[in-house]
Amino acid sequence: MHRVRPLPNYLVQRYHGWKATGYADNKAWYRRLASDGQHPRAMVIACCDSRVNVISIFGADQGEFFIHRNIANLVPPFQPDGDHHGTSAAVEYAVQVLKVSNLMVLGHSGCGGIQGCIDMCKGHAPELEDKGSFVGRWMDILRPRFESVRDIADDKEQAREMEKQAVVTSLQNLMTFPWIEEKVNAGELTLHGLWNDIGEGSLENYSPESGAFHPV
Amino acid sequence: MHRVRPLPNYLVQRYHGWKATGYADNKAWYRRLASDGQHPRAMVIACCDSRVNVISIFGADQGEFFIHRNIANLVPPFQPDGDHHGTSAAVEYAVQVLKVSNLMVLGHSGCGGIQGCIDMCKGHAPELEDKGSFVGRWMDILRPRFESVRDIADDKEQAREMEKQAVVTSLQNLMTFPWIEEKVNAGELTLHGLWNDIGEGSLENYSPESGAFHPV
Amino acid sequence: MHRVRPLPNYLVQRYHGWKATGYADNKAWYRRLASDGQHPRAMVIACCDSRVNVISIFGADQGEFFIHRNIANLVPPFQPDGDHHGTSAAVEYAVQVLKVSNLMVLGHSGCGGIQGCIDMCKGHAPELEDKGSFVGRWMDILRPRFESVRDIADDKEQAREMEKQAVVTSLQNLMTFPWIEEKVNAGELTLHGLWNDIGEGSLENYSPESGAFHPV
Amino acid sequence: MHRVRPLPNYLVQRYHGWKATGYADNKAWYRRLASDGQHPRAMVIACCDSRVNVISIFGADQGEFFIHRNIANLVPPFQPDGDHHGTSAAVEYAVQVLKVSNLMVLGHSGCGGIQGCIDMCKGHAPELEDKGSFVGRWMDILRPRFESVRDIADDKEQAREMEKQAVVTSLQNLMTFPWIEEKVNAGELTLHGLWNDIGEGSLENYSPESGAFHPV
Repeated sequence: MHRVRPLPNYLVQRYHGWKATGYADNKAWYRRLASDGQHPRAMVIACCDSRVNVISIFGADQGEFFIHRNIANLVPPFQPDGDHHGTSAAVEYAVQVLKVSNLMVLGHSGCGGIQGCIDMCKGHAPELEDKGSFVGRWMDILRPRFESVRDIADDKEQAREMEKQAVVTSLQNLMTFPWIEEKVNAGELTLHGLWNDIGEGSLENYSPESGAFHPV
Repeated sequence: MHRVRPLPNYLVQRYHGWKATGYADNKAWYRRLASDGQHPRAMVIACCDSRVNVISIFGADQGEFFIHRNIANLVPPFQPDGDHHGTSAAVEYAVQVLKVSNLMVLGHSGCGGIQGCIDMCKGHAPELEDKGSFVGRWMDILRPRFESVRDIADDKEQAREMEKQAVVTSLQNLMTFPWIEEKVNAGELTLHGLWNDIGEGSLENYSPESGAFHPV
Repeated sequence: MHRVRPLPNYLVQRYHGWKATGYADNKAWYRRLASDGQHPRAMVIACCDSRVNVISIFGADQGEFFIHRNIANLVPPFQPDGDHHGTSAAVEYAVQVLKVSNLMVLGHSGCGGIQGCIDMCKGHAPELEDKGSFVGRWMDILRPRFESVRDIADDKEQAREMEKQAVVTSLQNLMTFPWIEEKVNAGELTLHGLWNDIGEGSLENYSPESGAFHPV
Repeated sequence: MHRVRPLPNYLVQRYHGWKATGYADNKAWYRRLASDGQHPRAMVIACCDSRVNVISIFGADQGEFFIHRNIANLVPPFQPDGDHHGTSAAVEYAVQVLKVSNLMVLGHSGCGGIQGCIDMCKGHAPELEDKGSFVGRWMDILRPRFESVRDIADDKEQAREMEKQAVVTSLQNLMTFPWIEEKVNAGELTLHGLWNDIGEGSLENYSPESGAFHPV
C-alpha cells in the first residue's frame, strides 16, 4: 500500500475552508446527526455520473436522503444466494433498518452506462460482451429491455427511452423483494421513478397508469 | 406497477424552486455538461448514509466527482465471474472509461453497516448471519478484519477502528484489480483513504507509512 | 540574445522542490490534463497585479479556470480590424473554442493602472498622455468613465469607484462582441463582475439591477 | 446589462471558505500588501491555458510575481502607434513603474494557440485566416517562425518546437522595446525563456549560447 498518496492540496484547502464555514455554521446540526443517528425520510437510487444532482435538485441537506449511487441507477432482481449484493444490501438497510417512507429511482439524460448497453445490444461493443467486463455484466440487468426500443430510429431518442426503461426495470425489480412488496402493499413505502434532463434541468415522473414519464 | 405513487408534494415544490433559481443561474454550465459530457477528475466511494457529505466538504460542484455510494464504502475483491458486481462496474467505468486521476474512499463515524458487522462478529446479530441477509453478506467483505479490533474494550473506539479498517480493506481490494494496480504503478491514478467524523467535522487521511489515519 | 541569463537560483531550487512534491503527488492529474486537454468551466479576466489572488480565493486547481491577466482587467470594445488584439483573442478562444460557461471580470483595490488613469484624467500625469505610453493608451479604454467619478472628493473612494467602473466597462464591452451577446442571450454563457479588497479579503459582486456592487 | 447573473453558488461557498482560512491565516500579509503596495521581483508572461501553473511551480505567494497571461505567451514587437496594446502596457508597467528585476516568458506543451498557428500555416484552418478572427490575427505574431519548423515530420515534435519558437520570439520582441534593451544592457533587468511540459512537470530553460532549451 505504498502507492497511497497525500490528498491533493486543493482538496485539503477546500476542506479546511468548509470546516471553518459550512461546518462551523451548522455544527449544532452535525452534532445532533452524530448523537441521534440518521432518520432519513427517503432513499434515492441514482447514477454515479458526476453531473447528476441528487441533493440540490430537491433542496436537501445532510440527513434527509439515504443515497445509493451505481452505474445507470439499476436494481438487480431479488437473488438471496449468499453472494455480495451491494445494491440489494443498500435497499435492505434503507427499507428494513431505516424504514424510509419513499424510495426514488432517479435516471438521467446522456447516461454512459445506458449507451454502453445499447452499443452492446447492437453488437457494436464486443469489449462489453467479455465475461471480465464488470460494466457489461452489470448492464446485463437492463439488456432484455432493448427489444422495446430497438425500432426507435433516432439515436438520441432511443437512448432516452432506454434510460427511462432502466428506471422502470429498477422499479419492477424492487417489487421482487418480498419485504418491499409487503411494505408497498401495506402503505408503508412508496416507489417513485424519475428521469432528469441534465442540460434542460427538467424532471419527469413515471406514471404506471399511462406507462409513460410526465413532467413534474 | 400500480403501487408507484406521485412524487411527494414537498419535493415537487422544492424541485420547481431549484429549477427557477439553482438551474436558471447555472443553465450555461448544465448545458455545457450535457453537450460536452463529463470529465470528472476524481472518483469518490462513500457510504449511503444520509449524513455523509461528499460534495460540499470538498467545495465541489456538478461535474467534479464521479460518486459511488454503497453500504460502508466497501469495495469487494476483484472477481470476474460474470455476475452482477455493481461496485466493480462503477470502479471500472471511472478508471477505464473516464480515466479519473484520483480515487478516494471516504469512511465516516457512526456507520450502521460497520456496527452491524461488529455485532455479527460478536454473535449478537443472528439475523445478519442469515444467507438471505443482503447487509450481512455485504459486510462479509469486512469480516476478516474483526480480528484486528477484537481486543479494543471501548465500543465507540472499536467501531471507529473498524470503520477505518473498512477504508483500508477497500484500498487493498482496489489494488487487486489488475488495471488499477497497473495505473497506480504507472503514476496515472492515485488512491486515497479518508475518514470523516460527522459530529466534529474532522477529516483524517490514511498514511500507509504509519499504517494510521492522521488529521488532514 | 546574449542578454538572456540563467534562471535565478532560488527559482531553480523552488522548481525542483515542486517537482518532487507538488508534481509527484499530482502526477496522475497532470498527465490526464496533458492527454485529455483542458475543459475549464470558467474564464477569469483579472489584473496583472502580483497581489491579485485568482486561484486560491476560489479554491481552484490546475484545469479549472482559463485566465487572462492584463493591466486593470480591461476588455476593449469589439474591433475586428485585423490588428493584434490580445485580450479579444483570449476571450474568443475561451468562448468560441473552449466554450466556457462563466466569464468573470475580477477587479481589485489599490489598482495602479486605475490610479494612473485617474491621474491622467486630472491632468497630473502628462507622461501617460504621450502617444508612446502603452499604459496611457491602454487606460484610454476606461477614460470616458472618469466623468462618473469626477465629483467624488475622497481620493480613496474615488479610486474604488473607478476600479468598479472598470469592471462594468469590461462587462459592457464584452457584450459588444456579437458571439458573446448571442451566447449570453441563448443561456450558454453568463457574465460576472467582481471586485476584491486585497487588504480586507472581501469580495463584491456587481448587480445590474441595483447598478452597484454587493458583498458576496 | 440585465444578463449579468449571480455568482455560481459553489464559488460563493469556496470564497467564504477561503476568507475564513486562507485569508484569515494571512491577514497580516494581505494588509501589508494593501498598505505598502506591491514590490514584485519578477514579471511572468504566461499562457491563459487553465493547465499552466505559474504560481506553485515556483513556490510563489501573493506579491511575488507580476503576471500577464495571454494566448500563447506572445509579446508583439514595439509599436508605439497610439492604439490599445495590452501586452505592451503590462510590460511597460512592470519594467518602468515596478522596475522588476527578472522577466520570464513561460511557454508550455499542448498549447492550443500554437497548434492553431501551425494549422493556419499549413492551410488547414481557413477560419483563422479571416480578418475577424482575433486568435488568428494574434497568432500572426508567430507566423514567420513556421519556416523554421516546417520540415519537422512528427506533429508533436513540430508543435513543441513551435512552442519554443514562441518563447524565443517573445524574448526577441521584448528586446525591440528601447527601455528594455537599455535596462538589460545596464544590468538592471534579465530576460528568461522557459518551457514547461505539463504532463511530465519538466521545465526547460532557453540558452542563447546553444540556441536551445535545456532542462532546469
